[in-house]
Amino acid sequence: MDREKLIGLLESYREGRIEIEEVINSLKSLPFEDLGFALIDSHRAIRKGYPEVVYCKGKSIDQITEILQKMADGHSTILATKADRNIYESVKKTIPGSQFNETSGMILIGRRGEIITESSVLIVTAGTSDIPVAEEAAFTAETMGNNVERLYDAGVAGIHRLFGNVKKVFDAGVIVVVAGMDGALPSIIGGITDRPVIAVPTSTGYGSSFGGLSALLTMLNTCSPGVVTVNIDNGFGAGYFAGMINRQTARP
Amino acid sequence: MDREKLIGLLESYREGRIEIEEVINSLKSLPFEDLGFALIDSHRAIRKGYPEVVYCKGKSIDQITEILQKMADGHSTILATKADRNIYESVKKTIPGSQFNETSGMILIGRRGEIITESSVLIVTAGTSDIPVAEEAAFTAETMGNNVERLYDAGVAGIHRLFGNVKKVFDAGVIVVVAGMDGALPSIIGGITDRPVIAVPTSTGYGSSFGGLSALLTMLNTCSPGVVTVNIDNGFGAGYFAGMINRQTARP
Amino acid sequence: MDREKLIGLLESYREGRIEIEEVINSLKSLPFEDLGFALIDSHRAIRKGYPEVVYCKGKSIDQITEILQKMADGHSTILATKADRNIYESVKKTIPGSQFNETSGMILIGRRGEIITESSVLIVTAGTSDIPVAEEAAFTAETMGNNVERLYDAGVAGIHRLFGNVKKVFDAGVIVVVAGMDGALPSIIGGITDRPVIAVPTSTGYGSSFGGLSALLTMLNTCSPGVVTVNIDNGFGAGYFAGMINRQTARP
Amino acid sequence: MDREKLIGLLESYREGRIEIEEVINSLKSLPFEDLGFALIDSHRAIRKGYPEVVYCKGKSIDQITEILQKMADGHSTILATKADRNIYESVKKTIPGSQFNETSGMILIGRRGEIITESSVLIVTAGTSDIPVAEEAAFTAETMGNNVERLYDAGVAGIHRLFGNVKKVFDAGVIVVVAGMDGALPSIIGGITDRPVIAVPTSTGYGSSFGGLSALLTMLNTCSPGVVTVNIDNGFGAGYFAGMINRQTARP
Amino acid sequence: MDREKLIGLLESYREGRIEIEEVINSLKSLPFEDLGFALIDSHRAIRKGYPEVVYCKGKSIDQITEILQKMADGHSTILATKADRNIYESVKKTIPGSQFNETSGMILIGRRGEIITESSVLIVTAGTSDIPVAEEAAFTAETMGNNVERLYDAGVAGIHRLFGNVKKVFDAGVIVVVAGMDGALPSIIGGITDRPVIAVPTSTGYGSSFGGLSALLTMLNTCSPGVVTVNIDNGFGAGYFAGMINRQTARP
Amino acid sequence: MDREKLIGLLESYREGRIEIEEVINSLKSLPFEDLGFALIDSHRAIRKGYPEVVYCKGKSIDQITEILQKMADGHSTILATKADRNIYESVKKTIPGSQFNETSGMILIGRRGEIITESSVLIVTAGTSDIPVAEEAAFTAETMGNNVERLYDAGVAGIHRLFGNVKKVFDAGVIVVVAGMDGALPSIIGGITDRPVIAVPTSTGYGSSFGGLSALLTMLNTCSPGVVTVNIDNGFGAGYFAGMINRQTARP
Amino acid sequence: MDREKLIGLLESYREGRIEIEEVINSLKSLPFEDLGFALIDSHRAIRKGYPEVVYCKGKSIDQITEILQKMADGHSTILATKADRNIYESVKKTIPGSQFNETSGMILIGRRGEIITESSVLIVTAGTSDIPVAEEAAFTAETMGNNVERLYDAGVAGIHRLFGNVKKVFDAGVIVVVAGMDGALPSIIGGITDRPVIAVPTSTGYGSSFGGLSALLTMLNTCSPGVVTVNIDNGFGAGYFAGMINRQTARP
Amino acid sequence: MDREKLIGLLESYREGRIEIEEVINSLKSLPFEDLGFALIDSHRAIRKGYPEVVYCKGKSIDQITEILQKMADGHSTILATKADRNIYESVKKTIPGSQFNETSGMILIGRRGEIITESSVLIVTAGTSDIPVAEEAAFTAETMGNNVERLYDAGVAGIHRLFGNVKKVFDAGVIVVVAGMDGALPSIIGGITDRPVIAVPTSTGYGSSFGGLSALLTMLNTCSPGVVTVNIDNGFGAGYFAGMINRQTARP
Repeated sequence: MDREKLIGLLESYREGRIEIEEVINSLKSLPFEDLGFALIDSHRAIRKGYPEVVYCKGKSIDQITEILQKMADGHSTILATKADRNIYESVKKTIPGSQFNETSGMILIGRRGEIITESSVLIVTAGTSDIPVAEEAAFTAETMGNNVERLYDAGVAGIHRLFGNVKKVFDAGVIVVVAGMDGALPSIIGGITDRPVIAVPTSTGYGSSFGGLSALLTMLNTCSPGVVTVNIDNGFGAGYFAGMINRQTARP
Repeated sequence: MDREKLIGLLESYREGRIEIEEVINSLKSLPFEDLGFALIDSHRAIRKGYPEVVYCKGKSIDQITEILQKMADGHSTILATKADRNIYESVKKTIPGSQFNETSGMILIGRRGEIITESSVLIVTAGTSDIPVAEEAAFTAETMGNNVERLYDAGVAGIHRLFGNVKKVFDAGVIVVVAGMDGALPSIIGGITDRPVIAVPTSTGYGSSFGGLSALLTMLNTCSPGVVTVNIDNGFGAGYFAGMINRQTARP
Repeated sequence: MDREKLIGLLESYREGRIEIEEVINSLKSLPFEDLGFALIDSHRAIRKGYPEVVYCKGKSIDQITEILQKMADGHSTILATKADRNIYESVKKTIPGSQFNETSGMILIGRRGEIITESSVLIVTAGTSDIPVAEEAAFTAETMGNNVERLYDAGVAGIHRLFGNVKKVFDAGVIVVVAGMDGALPSIIGGITDRPVIAVPTSTGYGSSFGGLSALLTMLNTCSPGVVTVNIDNGFGAGYFAGMINRQTARP
Repeated sequence: MDREKLIGLLESYREGRIEIEEVINSLKSLPFEDLGFALIDSHRAIRKGYPEVVYCKGKSIDQITEILQKMADGHSTILATKADRNIYESVKKTIPGSQFNETSGMILIGRRGEIITESSVLIVTAGTSDIPVAEEAAFTAETMGNNVERLYDAGVAGIHRLFGNVKKVFDAGVIVVVAGMDGALPSIIGGITDRPVIAVPTSTGYGSSFGGLSALLTMLNTCSPGVVTVNIDNGFGAGYFAGMINRQTARP
Repeated sequence: MDREKLIGLLESYREGRIEIEEVINSLKSLPFEDLGFALIDSHRAIRKGYPEVVYCKGKSIDQITEILQKMADGHSTILATKADRNIYESVKKTIPGSQFNETSGMILIGRRGEIITESSVLIVTAGTSDIPVAEEAAFTAETMGNNVERLYDAGVAGIHRLFGNVKKVFDAGVIVVVAGMDGALPSIIGGITDRPVIAVPTSTGYGSSFGGLSALLTMLNTCSPGVVTVNIDNGFGAGYFAGMINRQTARP
Repeated sequence: MDREKLIGLLESYREGRIEIEEVINSLKSLPFEDLGFALIDSHRAIRKGYPEVVYCKGKSIDQITEILQKMADGHSTILATKADRNIYESVKKTIPGSQFNETSGMILIGRRGEIITESSVLIVTAGTSDIPVAEEAAFTAETMGNNVERLYDAGVAGIHRLFGNVKKVFDAGVIVVVAGMDGALPSIIGGITDRPVIAVPTSTGYGSSFGGLSALLTMLNTCSPGVVTVNIDNGFGAGYFAGMINRQTARP
Repeated sequence: MDREKLIGLLESYREGRIEIEEVINSLKSLPFEDLGFALIDSHRAIRKGYPEVVYCKGKSIDQITEILQKMADGHSTILATKADRNIYESVKKTIPGSQFNETSGMILIGRRGEIITESSVLIVTAGTSDIPVAEEAAFTAETMGNNVERLYDAGVAGIHRLFGNVKKVFDAGVIVVVAGMDGALPSIIGGITDRPVIAVPTSTGYGSSFGGLSALLTMLNTCSPGVVTVNIDNGFGAGYFAGMINRQTARP
Repeated sequence: MDREKLIGLLESYREGRIEIEEVINSLKSLPFEDLGFALIDSHRAIRKGYPEVVYCKGKSIDQITEILQKMADGHSTILATKADRNIYESVKKTIPGSQFNETSGMILIGRRGEIITESSVLIVTAGTSDIPVAEEAAFTAETMGNNVERLYDAGVAGIHRLFGNVKKVFDAGVIVVVAGMDGALPSIIGGITDRPVIAVPTSTGYGSSFGGLSALLTMLNTCSPGVVTVNIDNGFGAGYFAGMINRQTARP
């Protein structure tokens, strides 16, 4: 039911040509799609400042560019994940202000959210190979308007780096822990802090790491109750979730 | 927005106290849930005669009885699946007219749909152990108002029974094939008929049948294009789908 | 038993040299392969207009071309799936009238079936990366003589596009839903429509999507009873099944 | 280094018998275990009010009772998970004030945390069989001092219950979504809200649900960025995490 | 086409009322099922003496007894596998001559095949727990008319028993090797003999033996070329195959 | 114990310096490795005429050439599997008489075994993509001195080709069935013949065929008792086993 | 070649009836089985004091008792694993001196090995549920003559117990770490010690711990190089290996 | 607490401005990170001579070079694993003395440990393709100061090479067995020796070897108690563990 029909209906009622019951019944049977945007709009309003995301893998450069261009009209902030320099070169031509973060493979269109809390998101990695996924998380959280701290290479092989930076762990608002292979680091960090920990398994490793499955299972089976998990290599998801709850956090 | 508020809004408009723009804006921001039932109601209407289903596994007898009682008020036809005699005894006390089909472990509340087509659903099994799942499919399709034919024990070990009943296969409107172990039967039937085939893997078998997984994979990998698959032991789902498309079928 | 022997047998009987019992016994022991074609022929007749299919992956270009050439003599409509432009270039040389649909990677030889029903097949995708598989389904259904509607990018991230097109979903004769990653879309659509839904998992996604396994499992475990599943990325199978049942459907 | 040695060291220094450098070096080489409790103690202090947890499965009743008795001396709040009435009867004898929540199979020793925020944790289930796991989450969050709202049976089969309660979803501080079978519900809820969603797969279902694995994979592969996952049937973990972040949340 | 129609057709021809071409065409289009038994009958004849098999797991005692009774009329030799004493007690009442082999859980109806070769089937097990499956193989091969030798507990832990019986291994016509856990024994035996080896994985073991999967994979990946594999715990299949090829073997 | 020590021992005995008991005891404690070759030699003798095999995947061209050269000195017949033209070019230079079979990717060094039986090995494939693996089996059996028949493309999609060649199936001594995707063909053939069937799953197919796993499971779970299985794509193993038992077969 | 033939051979040589070359050739072709025991005997001698093991699961009480009785004649020390009190009651009757360790489910026949090193085996568990498997390791190592230390409940949830006992970890000769769920403990211990660590995954836990598979994968993927793994719940294997290398260890 | 604060605290105490209790309390709450290095340093000291390891896969050449350069300052011996010649060329420029072992893909920086025991590490492979992983183990053990023996190609296909070298197996201090495909070799060697065996599965093989998973499962399920396992292709881990326990071994 488009606007004209609705106006017609209401005017008919005002002019007494139809009864109030008939108006109500007509409204009840309004096609879902015409009023549905009420939900969508209010929903979108709440989300203002949060980035929309486009996942690049499995899409052609043309598709990505076209999608981003369309979205750039309606949204203030857009993130493209798992992108590479080729994709960026194409995007930059049609959306001049877009920025590229090479380590994380992310393209940012629009501006970052404002920082509204002193509380920071701490990103920890077990090893060097975990850094690209960690940077994806970091860049996402920063885009959403969060302070981000980093503590890299603090896994079992570099456990002294963790023990030497316990203060960082205690001071963080939310912690994202990125680890492949045995995936033990989130359990350890979850065991010594009361901050929420978001674990990200990575596909680093070989043999029975099975593309990150081993780390994923370890993290799901953690004995530390304050730990939740996202999908393998899903740095964006972890950063988004961490950024979301960090902004809502006011430490006592 | 409840009925009263809506009436108030419309009356205010009729009496000229508010402008038409205001009415439209109010309607647009109507809480989703107050108008959403438009979708639900019309949807339900279309489905009239189709059974609602309650899956009994993992629920206590008390929960099942309570759920069925509540549903029995609003729906004309309800099926409870994976039930046993104990559950039925409890249900019968509160819903006297309910019937129990022991082989399939199903309870029927309300009456069956009317048969509107001569076309029938043929249920085939590879072996004897597949019969309970097959009967679940058969009972479901019958409940929805379909003629059901049966051809049991027609798997590789009894392949002559299949070859001796090819006419049944050719005459069916839709075919449900229930098989465990190697799960090859749907491929064979799909290869000799142009009727839609719904394959149901069963958890029959031992060793590397892995609770039906082997049969499931076989069926998903069928080389016969007219074959689709439902979950392991999901006789209800197959019967429902078969019944649904059989009723919409008019053979040329 | 070849034709000559059969004629000899019948003539011996006519001339009274053998009894009718002997003829019947001889016929009973006729080698299977000599009469077997009765089955095949009648079977083929029923299928007239349906495409034969050649799956290109794992075959050399020479093999494909040779196979298609042989088939082109006997069949009116042939589809080659998972093909690319190189394959098409080779095929076109020997079968001039063949057509190539690049998005779906399909080659069509012969002509499409006639459209015999107003009812249409609706193809829905969750995301952009699912489009090639969706187009495979669409092209197959069209080849079989069906009207095809499309609703792309209507997954959770674009759920408003689904809600804004509910009428399309309600009007379809059969619905094919193509989705990777969480594979939740067929469950949602199955929950709001009474049309048959054929779910196609795709190998889109990363991490624990395991090449489509995650979406496949989701779809098999759907709580919506009117949903069946085909193999990962098997757009052809879904389109074929959908086209088959759509042609047999006359909506009340 | 025990207290006496430490006192001796310091007194030697005060009396001028050793240099300050020597004291520092001695302190540096203090056995880890003697000072380590600094970490543990301060850590524990921060966590005050949070429950300690004992997982009962795989432990004998005697072991559980003994463990709980020991812990009851040192901690103000203890939760035992996956317990049954037999375990509770034994525990109650030695720890009289303990309470039993039968639906969730949890024993509470000590008192609940104080509620410090109006913000509530919303627990949603897809089906009836998911309720015990949901109640585990609810009871845990309540124990930690959170308001808890419930919305049960709102899965695909009862999707109108979700659409009819969208306000509840919008008003929650944190949402825990418990679902088995296809596990699609967290994706749907994550798609319409900007609240953090913690997904809990359950082992409900049959066939290829594989004891909850299917739901777990669906949830990990969600397309909604604000969704994280805990282990199958781990209601405690979800409730703990939700309770933790809800207490730190101040909605704008 | 039933007998009467066929007689009618032939008589019409004899009486000159129809041409020979018409008879041939009618025969060609004879429904498959009427002549198909030609295949089945000749097929059955070749198999004379081979046992028919009924797999008992997943069937009720009544079903088993009924099936066996029906089969006992038409077949000279029937084996029921995975049976227990309860099943046998019921079977014995209706089929008095049936025999029960408790170790292998098999019921034999009818008599064993005659021994037609000196060549024997050797059954080897790695451990004691593998004996029931081994006896299933032994009993099957004996039923088919083969000499059977046994060499039990000759796995890695008792490898001296293998080395001390190498002559037995060299003298056998066919070898069945039954092993759980690491499943290494068929590889070893296949490496020192040129006799055909049929490997049977068993579900013995714990931990990552995964109900025999580990042994199955080992056997499939054997480096010894004369080794083939049957399903986990499928002693019947191995004994049947071994018995089949042993009977066809004449050693040079 | 080397030759010199053994001679010394025997001479001491001959000269009466030691008793016969001492000689026997010394012999009993002979180091295993000195006499062990007795086993190996006799073993090798029995195997005369059978090919040795070298698996090329994962080895460098230099390694393969060197290995083959060494073996060519001691063995009359050698097969290299999974080879390509590059490997063959290198091998041909050092072993001039070697032959290359391109379809199967096999190199033959030495001459084929003599044919000693009329009985033949029948190789059946379900599809065209299965031919390379089938040819590996065929070439191996031929090398061992067997007549080989072929029946290709006789799977479900070309089932009439199977039904039209049932005589071939009935006449074979041993049957190798090569199939990917649903892997149903060995079950069908096993159901209509009493000849031993060796099933070879191939990694053909897509989606949940999982590199041949689906076909492998189907074959292991076959309901036809005369079917055994080798590893995925292991044409050599199937051809070797088939050739081995065919040579030992004399049909009654 | 039996003793008599050997004597005859040697006497013929002594009497000059055969040449020394002939004796040597005859010895070379001695059937493997007659001299093979040379290997076995010397091998057994080296192993003196090490226990033989009988795995009870999957064996009947009668089988176990019979096996143990036979072994008790030839061996000084025997361990039966995964036993229960019923088994022990039966064993005790026939082998009076046997002892039962209830926690580990082990029966010891014969006496423990002597302790030959001060170095001890440290057994660590993550949780209480891991104790039975840990005690199996402890009892095995003690039986082999090792000092055993215990440190239980030192997992992530009780990490302060680990940090408070670091000296124990540093002082051990070999460390066995038993852990279920996330299986992270061996990585942590391997990261802070240079002692060999043997990791034992247990089937403790729920959800995606998959009967210990998750812990197993974690341990195999450890980043700490001094860690090796045994099968799930295989306390015996870990204790045996630890005991074996501890006895051979002399700390610098 | 930095050095200055600590000095201030101690001086305040010396000057009598604070009580000894206050000093102790302050020390107790010393931030963990300031004293933690006590643990790390002593730990490092013990490990002197053992190599640090850098895993190259998944790291860029620049990252590797930078990491190695940093480590080269502080450590005497560093190993980079899974490296190739390109990586080495870059490393050599900044760390001139570094050496490259091409077969194993390892770079050594610093010098090897001194050999302190006659006891040697024996590395056995089943086939030729296992050699790179075996050399990784060998090179690691040599770097740590161990004598290394090699016995290659001694798997089932070359079992005579094993039997002909039993003395090597008996003389070794520790044995590393590297095998792909069926992975049976460690079980066989573990069955004939009392030396510790470390099993390394490799990703050699095809079909259902699943990238080494089959061999891994075989090894974990070994019936030989003196066998432990490391991850697939983890030659470094096996060599490190073997080298570690060999250095601590003094054979009786």
